[in-house]
Amino acid sequence: MLEFDHGLRLHRLMEKLKESPADTVWILQPENRRYLSGFRATDMQMTESSGSLLIREDRRVLVTDSRYGEEAKREAPLFEVQVPAEGLLGRLPGLLAEMGCRVVGFEPDWVTWNLYQRVREKIDGLSPPVRLEPLEGIVEGLREVKDAQELRAVEESARLMGRVLDEVVEDLRPGMTERAVARRIENLAWEAGAEGLAFPPIVASGPNGALPHAVPTQRPLKVGEAIVLDVGLKLHGYCCDMTRTVFLDGPDELFRKIYRTVREAQLAAMAEIRDGVLSTLPDAVARDIIREAGFGAYFGHALGHGVGLAAHERPRMAPRDAVTLKSGAVVTVEPGIYIPGKGGVRLEEMVVVEPDGARVLTHAGHVYDF
Amino acid sequence: MLEFDHGLRLHRLMEKLKESPADTVWILQPENRRYLSGFRATDMQMTESSGSLLIREDRRVLVTDSRYGEEAKREAPLFEVQVPAEGLLGRLPGLLAEMGCRVVGFEPDWVTWNLYQRVREKIDGLSPPVRLEPLEGIVEGLREVKDAQELRAVEESARLMGRVLDEVVEDLRPGMTERAVARRIENLAWEAGAEGLAFPPIVASGPNGALPHAVPTQRPLKVGEAIVLDVGLKLHGYCCDMTRTVFLDGPDELFRKIYRTVREAQLAAMAEIRDGVLSTLPDAVARDIIREAGFGAYFGHALGHGVGLAAHERPRMAPRDAVTLKSGAVVTVEPGIYIPGKGGVRLEEMVVVEPDGARVLTHAGHVYDF
Repeated sequence: MLEFDHGLRLHRLMEKLKESPADTVWILQPENRRYLSGFRATDMQMTESSGSLLIREDRRVLVTDSRYGEEAKREAPLFEVQVPAEGLLGRLPGLLAEMGCRVVGFEPDWVTWNLYQRVREKIDGLSPPVRLEPLEGIVEGLREVKDAQELRAVEESARLMGRVLDEVVEDLRPGMTERAVARRIENLAWEAGAEGLAFPPIVASGPNGALPHAVPTQRPLKVGEAIVLDVGLKLHGYCCDMTRTVFLDGPDELFRKIYRTVREAQLAAMAEIRDGVLSTLPDAVARDIIREAGFGAYFGHALGHGVGLAAHERPRMAPRDAVTLKSGAVVTVEPGIYIPGKGGVRLEEMVVVEPDGARVLTHAGHVYDF
Repeated sequence: MLEFDHGLRLHRLMEKLKESPADTVWILQPENRRYLSGFRATDMQMTESSGSLLIREDRRVLVTDSRYGEEAKREAPLFEVQVPAEGLLGRLPGLLAEMGCRVVGFEPDWVTWNLYQRVREKIDGLSPPVRLEPLEGIVEGLREVKDAQELRAVEESARLMGRVLDEVVEDLRPGMTERAVARRIENLAWEAGAEGLAFPPIVASGPNGALPHAVPTQRPLKVGEAIVLDVGLKLHGYCCDMTRTVFLDGPDELFRKIYRTVREAQLAAMAEIRDGVLSTLPDAVARDIIREAGFGAYFGHALGHGVGLAAHERPRMAPRDAVTLKSGAVVTVEPGIYIPGKGGVRLEEMVVVEPDGARVLTHAGHVYDF
């Protein structure tokens, strides 16, 4: 079992908090919550929070409900766990007053309009006054750069997934349905010891491969068609994400050209990744290659995204919203070409940004050299 | 394949809209989106929307991105599908102006604080002016009462789950791990034709049963202990939800008493459910029985919740927030008693509210008459 240093993470959070007007951080986003506390509960939906962290320099409280009280105490030893009968909203005014909070920083991408209004109503009467302050991405920013333990977790996650994917690809046969293949991926991942999947597997054959986020169907695999397999699992809480496109028997001329183009774009993009590079550069390099090959209209999505406790997190590599890639960030590189009605090819590696380049963490086979 | 009447749903939405200041509805919550349009895409997380509906009396637009354009056209024929390169936020000012919208109703439980601010900035300059108006639960309110097709979907979903659960329970043996049992439930559900699970199965044995939302572990099942199995799948988009607590060999005296108490509470609560009853009544009846048996401190959660496109939806049956139960609503009745360190018993049926009572939709066996 890997041990994560929640104390250090909390210390870094407090350092960042000093740059903001807030004296307290209120966290409810599940991955942010787990990152800071170790509390593993997930949320079934936005309106069903499993708990909130309230963090000040001198006090850390995890407010949850009777469903999760026991887990919280076991998993989050750095926090004082409270299970108020009146719920978070009922408890909040008293707790904030007790803690001496004046400016409570919240997660503006995760607090809904309604929850914001309700909390504001609850704290409106407090004296001395308490106000809310959006802290955009304060924890997501910390999560963006992985430490050695986290890199080990992501790497082990990818290694396990790669072994499963290899086994699945080697056993692919014409007539198997996409859905059966997806089930096999999930079962092998569990058997291999995964905590779960990072996302439902995509198994998209023939024309279904033209849908970048296809849901596996009862369609049987056929010889000659492109089969896109996009898979990820969770281990030690950390996700991995990888995609292979395979053929039962070789592709036709068109798909051979498409595959070559996607692979060339991927390798060129990976060659640009290193500490200090803007996130838009690898995307532009991949996009240019695909456009020059005549497939510019068929690559609509971003080149890649960060991976960690969440399958999609910072940094994003896309044509817009440039950010600087930092050593220790883990990103996917996943160009694709999707021809409506015919099919698609996507290739995805997960890499860690290093001072001098990108180190590939995904080692499944079945990358063709057409 | 069941056919759902999206036209009628949209008509009802427009009727409800007349009671509000808004002339347009903006929908992004995945189940609300599917309910109104048929578009089945889910959202990976709050910050990754698969699409928005913009609905006026005279025009219906589904704005999505290149990942989902093809599916959207096929699944949502009543909508004009747009895939703007500039994204929803970029497209919104032009689209709202084109549609002649003045007051855009939004989902306050699903629009984040950040998204609200961004949309407001985008539309701030428009002339004539456009403003945002929260429409609390406008679609959730429609979803609360199921029509005949929806009831058929929920019923078929529950029937399939019941068959799977029976098969799993009959094969339980000492030494099997919770996790292996959970995997078997999931595999049998898929094999039986489920669209997927409604939520990850809970298989909680011995002391783990004291955690109402336990995650299955490698703990082997043991003779004499209570084993809680809480399971649900999706069929035709609709969820089901049911729980059995079983014993390999009989329970001891304490758990026999606990089981009897929970079952008595469940039956008494179900007997109170009918059209027009307040949602707090069945909860109070169950809670009283559990308290009188001396276990009041060990039943912390609500009695039940609505089930439909989401595993948890309206109406909720809890000690507070009374709502009137309506014919056609589908709710769970799931009292439980959880003794820390020892284990728990939860029993859950899913019922449809009818004019004269509750009709049980879940028919798995293994309900003991100790």
